[in-house]
Order: sequence, then C-alpha cells, then structure tokens
Amino acid sequence: MTINQPISISHPITESLSNQHTKELSALKQKKFRELTGKVVIEGFRLVDQILSNGILPEALITSDEHFNGTFPFKSEYHGRVWQATASQMERICDTKQPQDWAAIMSCQTRKIVDSNFILYLDNIQDPGNMGTIFRTAAAAGINGVIRSSSCCELFNLKVIRASLGAVFFVPTENADVDYIESFTGTRIAMCIEGSESIFEYKAPGQNVLLILGSEAEGIQPAILKSVDAKVRIPIAESMESLNVSVAAGISLFIIKHGIRS
Amino acid sequence: MTINQPISISHPITESLSNQHTKELSALKQKKFRELTGKVVIEGFRLVDQILSNGILPEALITSDEHFNGTFPFKSEYHGRVWQATASQMERICDTKQPQDWAAIMSCQTRKIVDSNFILYLDNIQDPGNMGTIFRTAAAAGINGVIRSSSCCELFNLKVIRASLGAVFFVPTENADVDYIESFTGTRIAMCIEGSESIFEYKAPGQNVLLILGSEAEGIQPAILKSVDAKVRIPIAESMESLNVSVAAGISLFIIKHGIRS
Repeated sequence: MTINQPISISHPITESLSNQHTKELSALKQKKFRELTGKVVIEGFRLVDQILSNGILPEALITSDEHFNGTFPFKSEYHGRVWQATASQMERICDTKQPQDWAAIMSCQTRKIVDSNFILYLDNIQDPGNMGTIFRTAAAAGINGVIRSSSCCELFNLKVIRASLGAVFFVPTENADVDYIESFTGTRIAMCIEGSESIFEYKAPGQNVLLILGSEAEGIQPAILKSVDAKVRIPIAESMESLNVSVAAGISLFIIKHGIRS
Repeated sequence: MTINQPISISHPITESLSNQHTKELSALKQKKFRELTGKVVIEGFRLVDQILSNGILPEALITSDEHFNGTFPFKSEYHGRVWQATASQMERICDTKQPQDWAAIMSCQTRKIVDSNFILYLDNIQDPGNMGTIFRTAAAAGINGVIRSSSCCELFNLKVIRASLGAVFFVPTENADVDYIESFTGTRIAMCIEGSESIFEYKAPGQNVLLILGSEAEGIQPAILKSVDAKVRIPIAESMESLNVSVAAGISLFIIKHGIRS
C-alpha cells in the first residue's frame, strides 16, 4: 500500500501504518515531495475537524490514539480509511513538536472560483503565517475566492495550512497576475498606506468587489495600482508605521464585506 | 564596561564590543537573564527606527556596519552610545537568523497608563506572536493603554517585541486582573463568539471604553464576563470556527475606535 493508492470504503478499517509508509508521509514535509506526489499531511484534531466540517474528504486519517474504536471525535461523519500509527510514527509524520492524536493525508487540490461577488487578490504575500491567517480570515468573512499572484508563497506550505485552519482546502483559490485585475468587471479596491480615502469614509459598492492587498515591505506593485478603481487606507496613529498585513486584511475584509449584499 | 553601567553622552562614540560584553548580551535571549538584568536586545533597523521615532532612548545602539561613520540611517536623531560589533558578534547577540546591521540594548521598562479613554484588556494571551501583533495593532489604533492579565506571556519575550514592532516599549501597559475590570468607570465591552450583538450593529460609546479580548482556545474567563456591560461578536461565516485573536483584535479595535471621540 502506498500513498498513491487510496481506497474508498464505506466504513473505517483501521490498519497499522508501515514504517515504509511512515517514511513516505514524513517526506511530505518537504516541498519537493508535496509537488511530486500532490499530497500533504495535515496535523491536529482541530485542523482535521475543520476540514471535515467543510466537506473536504481526506485520502485517509491517521490516529495515534491507541484506544480508537471506530468512534470519531469530529463534528462531521467520516467513512474513509483510518491508519493506526504509534506515537513515534506520528512524531515522524508531523511537523509540529506537540504530540498529535490525529492527522490526515490530503490531496493538494483547490476549489475553483465560481462566484466573483467578493474576491480577494493577494499580491506578493510571501510570509506563510500571514498567508495562512489571511485565508482563515477570508473564509470567516465569507469570501467567494482568493487570487494569488505568482510571487506568493506555496499554498500547501505546512505553516500556511496550519495558520489557515485548513481554509486553503475549501476557500476557492486560483493563481493569476495583473491581467486578472485588468479584466475584473466590478470595483477594484487597493488597500494601501498612500490611499486617498479612509476605509471608514469609503462607501463600498454593494457587489462585485475585488479587494487587493500587497506585502508589508513593498506594498502593491505599481502595475496593479494603475488598474484599480479606488485606493483606500486604514487610518493609523503616527506612533506606528504600519499594520501587520493579516490584521490589515481582517479589518478591510470585514468592513468592505459589511457593505456587500450577498 | 558591563551592561549594567550605561553612560549618557551627547554624541556617538563608537567603541568595539568586547567578547565578554557580547556574551552578556547574548545571554539576554534567555528570559532568566532578562529578568535578572532588566535588559533586552532588540534587533533590526526597522525595530530600532520605530523605537527612536517614539522617543524611547536605548541604553546603547550596536552596529555591525563597518562603514558606520557617525551618520545614522534613522528617521530620528540619536546622541547616545554606539557599539561597533563584528558580523559574528552580531550573530551571537541576535535571535533571528537574518544578519542585522543594527541592534539596541533596551531597558525592560513600560510606560504608565495616564488616560483611560480607550483601554484594551488582554485575558490570558499566551502566544507571543499574537501578543506582539496585538500591541502593534493597538498602537496603530491609538490605544491609551493595554492591561495584561497575569496569565499573559512575558511582555519582553523576543517574539513579542518583534511582532509588536517595538510597541511594547511605548504603548502604556500594566499588569492587572479582574479587579481592574470591576472598578473601571466606563463601558466594558467583551469580544466573544457568544456575544449577543454584532460589532456592526453595536453602537460604541463615545468615550471611556474598555475592550476585552480572551485567548482563542479558552475565550474570556467567566469571572470577567460577569462584570462587563456588553458582549459583542464579530459575525463570521459558518465555514470557519473562529478568527485568529490578533485579527479579531484588529477588527474590534478599529471599529470601536471609530466611534470614540478623542
């Protein structure tokens, strides 16, 4: 049994994880093996629970709970395969130091964007923690999709996945560059320090909004700024030079969202 | 010369850092030595610049720039002591892997709260990254002070300092527990998932606001919730269980701030 041969079954069959399989799963901590296999391991009860709640089916679950008797602790049902791992196997598979009872083998697949009423565009977001937190926040704000510029960090980086609480698997997302912004039919709002309007005075359009965020260090690239309909800023006190980009994302997503009809 | 004998001088004198001094400064990466000496090293141009801009005087600056000729790259003037370090000494002193041109020796001192028009109370915030980001965001929102429950993480933890962009040194802050909330004369607003009012419908009072945030895992402790005037929530989509606490802080600080007269 290798990780390339998932089996669909209608009830959990718990089998012991082999050391060979453990080794293959452990390799998925490296980007090159994620890209080679198209798979990644997510770890921790909370993350697995959030994935299942959103109807995302893992290829298999892994438990190190030696008392597991077929009764799952998750909010949603699960009828797929379960691997039984020893504590030490689980440690080898997982990236975090904290021992985990649950992990899941996932396909590195994203959902397609089917509605563009409220879209977030991320230009050059390279820090995995920020990237993940923005996905988590965008999911919470009810975004219809997130577009990532090609300079953004890897979506299935383990830190991104953890900070996103799994949102990278269920928030529709695509890769695209400036041409997406140019051809967007709706209102394109760039969040930037040099924005002429305060977000608290800006009257957000009721629909078809593209909200654009750039990196903390470099802001939004000029080619994008040329194509936007509004440049909006979050007014901040003089004592601080800027906001963290995921905090700025949270403030702008929720304030703009509040003005959008679904 | 030891780190316990700062000298006030009116112009920069650059002296080479000794290896003994380097060793003492390197020890400040550990909490016990920070507590013993009351000192901490902050690292990186951006952090030092932000500190100086807010009128905070370091005990000394450290530079590894071998071309330093007395002309500072900072927005604000500096007339204090400067130590010249080698690249390898700087590496030993600094916690981050990225090589730094600038660092500063700081006193672990906080500013007292003198105005209570807009105060943030943090209950049991233990993650240093979140703690620091909340301080940075609170500074940007123009907070008058941050109260930390005794269960919060160490304020001068290096991750807190970095994520705060130095705000821990200039945002007035104190330690206090439930009694502070009970005796606060003003409106005490608890941000919590089970809040009865949406923050987008809640009419924030114009002054004397105490905004209360708890940890992601445990929320705000019941003893505090008993003493508040309002329980307010950030409405989120069903697909996500919660927001990151520093993002929730950003949204609530800025929306509540927007309703406060200075």
